[in-house]
Amino acid sequence: MLTRIDHIGIACRNLDETVEFYRATYGFEVFHTEVNEEQGVREAMLKINETDDGGASYLQLLEPIREDSTVAKWLEKNGEGVHHIAFGTADVDGESEAIRGKGVRVLYDEPRRGSMGSRITFLHPKDCHGVLTELVTSAPADAAGH
Amino acid sequence: MLTRIDHIGIACRNLDETVEFYRATYGFEVFHTEVNEEQGVREAMLKINETDDGGASYLQLLEPIREDSTVAKWLEKNGEGVHHIAFGTADVDGESEAIRGKGVRVLYDEPRRGSMGSRITFLHPKDCHGVLTELVTSAPADAAGH
Repeated sequence: MLTRIDHIGIACRNLDETVEFYRATYGFEVFHTEVNEEQGVREAMLKINETDDGGASYLQLLEPIREDSTVAKWLEKNGEGVHHIAFGTADVDGESEAIRGKGVRVLYDEPRRGSMGSRITFLHPKDCHGVLTELVTSAPADAAGH
Repeated sequence: MLTRIDHIGIACRNLDETVEFYRATYGFEVFHTEVNEEQGVREAMLKINETDDGGASYLQLLEPIREDSTVAKWLEKNGEGVHHIAFGTADVDGESEAIRGKGVRVLYDEPRRGSMGSRITFLHPKDCHGVLTELVTSAPADAAGH
């Protein structure tokens, strides 16, 4: 079961400037930053609200750190904007297998590491009416509301 | 203060097919449907989770009902995908004026009617790092959790 909007992933060219835009315009503060070498991005998570499944909803601001990262290629084609959306679930393995069984292409054979120690996978946007869709299971501490 | 991700607006060519995709793939059910003549769209709201400000987060699926609607033009240019994101606030009037005062273009002089009796406005995507951004104040009954 998918129980929350976990985050909206937004691709930007300059993470520091974009973080500052969200702080100055809306008052959103950085909850967490990290570099994900595998995804080729530097990212900031802005926590917007908590959710009734014990998790939270974030904006995830993403700046590519390599020209050959998928986010860099996406930016080159589309410019800055919403890159993907992510639904939270307690069971990313089970959900992704069930969804694969319905004929939707799941991009990873096994979930990989996402933000804040989460486990994630992606669904092919062409199978999801144009929306690159991520499934996320938070790390235990985060799932408990920390 | 913006207190939640209110919804993610997703443009689609065929609302019924897209609703069925979200139901069959994820189990998301339609919470509400309506036609917004002013925006030129037929829409379905899928409630994903409740939020700690007493509101909820939705997916808003949008199908244009007129060729000259902004969503129809957007689809022609971009294809199906995420059209906008929306933040919930108790005070769309005050927030939009404060944000206008920071030099971000607000698209309406006064908030207009959005889904489920809400009052909404939009911020220019070019002033928001490529993200068409909506601000929403729910109708009183919805804000109370109905």
